[in-house]
Amino acid sequence: MIVRKVDEIEAQEMSEAQNATIKILIGEKEGALNFIMRYFCINPKGSTPYHSHDWEHEIFILKGKGVIRGENALYTVEAGSFAYIPPNEKHSFENPFDEPLEFLCIIPKW
Amino acid sequence: MIVRKVDEIEAQEMSEAQNATIKILIGEKEGALNFIMRYFCINPKGSTPYHSHDWEHEIFILKGKGVIRGENALYTVEAGSFAYIPPNEKHSFENPFDEPLEFLCIIPKW
Repeated sequence: MIVRKVDEIEAQEMSEAQNATIKILIGEKEGALNFIMRYFCINPKGSTPYHSHDWEHEIFILKGKGVIRGENALYTVEAGSFAYIPPNEKHSFENPFDEPLEFLCIIPKW
Repeated sequence: MIVRKVDEIEAQEMSEAQNATIKILIGEKEGALNFIMRYFCINPKGSTPYHSHDWEHEIFILKGKGVIRGENALYTVEAGSFAYIPPNEKHSFENPFDEPLEFLCIIPKW
């Protein structure tokens, strides 16, 4: 069993996003078998690219407020919001607010 | 895309645990393909059974404090702690503290 705290994990700049960092919490190194737990921080005025891919996201918002842009709607989210983004649906995460948006984004391993 | 809030989801008593409830946030009904996002609340003096199974857990602590009992150690956890529990390792979640322990527990779908 591995037990850690988010604050112990180093954040990496996301080169493909604006003002955003990622931490891999539970990945291959930790022995993840089927899905990877990642921690995103989108700083104010930051965003991830509006894109799609053939795997799903399961999202849980931890802190702050933000917007998830989907193909058919914009969703304002905050701590306690969660989202399922199916494969091949275009999406981005945007932070037009004044405090960091922090969330978990879990993806399949393959 | 599905976007919801934890407060909208009904909690179910966990018959196999003490003073604990579960919400299925992202499951088969929501279209989950590979892994299921579940929300646990272990109330003060509550616990889940000390057991093992052949699938893994990926855990993220959201609120409160608690103890994860593993085969070789006890870990005190709080908001921002996360854990990887591999298949077949015995574990339980225990709350000897005074406020509810709330966490995400993600499991593979199969």
